Amino acid sequence: MRTVLVIGIGAGDPDHLTLQAVAAMRRADVFFGIDKGTVKDDLAALRTELLDRHVDAGTYHVVDAPDPERDRDAGGSAYRDAVLDWQDRRADLYAAMIADELGPDGVGAFLVWGDPSLYDGTLRLLAGIREADLASGGQGFDIESVPGVSSVAALAAAHRLILNRVGGSVLVTTGRRLAAGMPREVDDVVVMLDGATTFATLPDDDLAIYWGAYLGTPDEILVSGDLQEVKDEIVRVRAEARARKGWIMDTYLLRRDPGRR
Amino acid sequence: MRTVLVIGIGAGDPDHLTLQAVAAMRRADVFFGIDKGTVKDDLAALRTELLDRHVDAGTYHVVDAPDPERDRDAGGSAYRDAVLDWQDRRADLYAAMIADELGPDGVGAFLVWGDPSLYDGTLRLLAGIREADLASGGQGFDIESVPGVSSVAALAAAHRLILNRVGGSVLVTTGRRLAAGMPREVDDVVVMLDGATTFATLPDDDLAIYWGAYLGTPDEILVSGDLQEVKDEIVRVRAEARARKGWIMDTYLLRRDPGRR
Ligand SMILES: C[S@@+](CC[C@H](N)C(=O)[O-])C[C@H]1O[C@@H](n2cnc3c(N)ncnc32)[C@H](O)[C@@H]1O
Ligand SMILES: C[S@@+](CC[C@H](N)C(=O)[O-])C[C@H]1O[C@@H](n2cnc3c(N)ncnc32)[C@H](O)[C@@H]1O
Repeated sequence: MRTVLVIGIGAGDPDHLTLQAVAAMRRADVFFGIDKGTVKDDLAALRTELLDRHVDAGTYHVVDAPDPERDRDAGGSAYRDAVLDWQDRRADLYAAMIADELGPDGVGAFLVWGDPSLYDGTLRLLAGIREADLASGGQGFDIESVPGVSSVAALAAAHRLILNRVGGSVLVTTGRRLAAGMPREVDDVVVMLDGATTFATLPDDDLAIYWGAYLGTPDEILVSGDLQEVKDEIVRVRAEARARKGWIMDTYLLRRDPGRR
Repeated sequence: MRTVLVIGIGAGDPDHLTLQAVAAMRRADVFFGIDKGTVKDDLAALRTELLDRHVDAGTYHVVDAPDPERDRDAGGSAYRDAVLDWQDRRADLYAAMIADELGPDGVGAFLVWGDPSLYDGTLRLLAGIREADLASGGQGFDIESVPGVSSVAALAAAHRLILNRVGGSVLVTTGRRLAAGMPREVDDVVVMLDGATTFATLPDDDLAIYWGAYLGTPDEILVSGDLQEVKDEIVRVRAEARARKGWIMDTYLLRRDPGRR
């Protein structure tokens, strides 16, 4: 049976890799990559470094495919449609790569950022490709997911944080959703995928922010404090870093009433 | 400067350990453990296995302290108080261990289950001890947190799940909170610390459940499906497993309208 592995590689530090991920990488004949262009060169470099360090040269090869164009300006409900459309076109590329590159007992692998279960479409795409393959009389393939250190865990570790308060809940959400305001029902909110510094638009005066960019990398930047007091500093630091490196990945925890345990 | 490391060891599989965690373990002179008694013998055994496998014998020692009694019957707001009281008494034990065992440049370590940032009090306790030590004229100590694979990531991987829907949020909460009903504002809810099979009390007919016990271990059990259809099976399987092993750790995702991407 053909097998496709989705391997979480952690959120920036090459040593976020688990022993399970190393073992999984060594099972793969072929690594599928999506060439994300210049902005993501550093991420591609990390993948290469991990392969060089942990897998014997000559035991695998790497196949790349260009990432389809995506309409990044779509707002509102068009955003969801744009993402889904882009994922559908990506599915066609992945299906072709799997069909072309994977022998009858072949093992292919995707190295995905952080943990495969958070804001990463790879598992969804593969499930769709597998279904389509089976529906058209193909043999399908097994899918395995290898968990990893998420950027949420990396953020918490960098700030020495416990994300929940005693007996409390934690919401993980996106910048787009936060634009509707800090949720009322939960006091600890981790925000990912916020390209618009949405935290700076919140009027709340009872929030602390724990912000981190390039977590786990030598470029890591951390800022924390009362939201209203530090928000301008974060916006400034973020813009500078982004201009300098050409891209940024950041995430943060918003905590209501931070003095409470 | 004295240093205390809080090292996430993953949620059951010894190979959840990260390379960073292995390196951190090798820095420690002393490992602090809390003897949890019979029910948690398997967890103590995992810690011992990890030390045997990854750290040279003779380079460290292990110090245990008995876990203080905890009022597990407290309900409602008394629950929070009972947890906080128990954590305060634990803090006294930890403070004494650190004072007694850690030399001026010593490195101590706690090996904590999953990721240190989710439903684990170790970092909070250490911050309190450090503050008290500084306030009473002590030198304090550095605290470092090493992220790990959480049981949330392990659950998702076992079911090959992405936790969020496209652009959506994910809530991580407890069984106690779920007792108030499935939250209305979020469609994907991960439930931890549910000793009371609260899922089985929910009337909702639009929920799927993805349940896992002993994730990452040879005893792993997975059940998924429409909540109303599989809830009785999960309750039964859970009771049997718990009777057989003497303890259980389980967690689950509740997903509203599971057909939607
Ligand atoms: C497409 S999602 C992928 C998340 C990934 N699967 C994970 O588990 O972290 C990318 C988002 O993750 C967050 N992120 C990932 N890596 C990060 C890092 N090293 N530092 C800060 N944020 C990061 C950012 O919010 C970014 O917008
Ligand atoms: C005190 S919390 C600690 C969580 C841990 N820090 C983590 O990141 O997973 C214990 C709860 O985590 C969940 N859990 C931990 N390990 C698990 C496993 N191997 N299988 C299923 N659930 C687990 C259960 O819900 C359990 O009640």
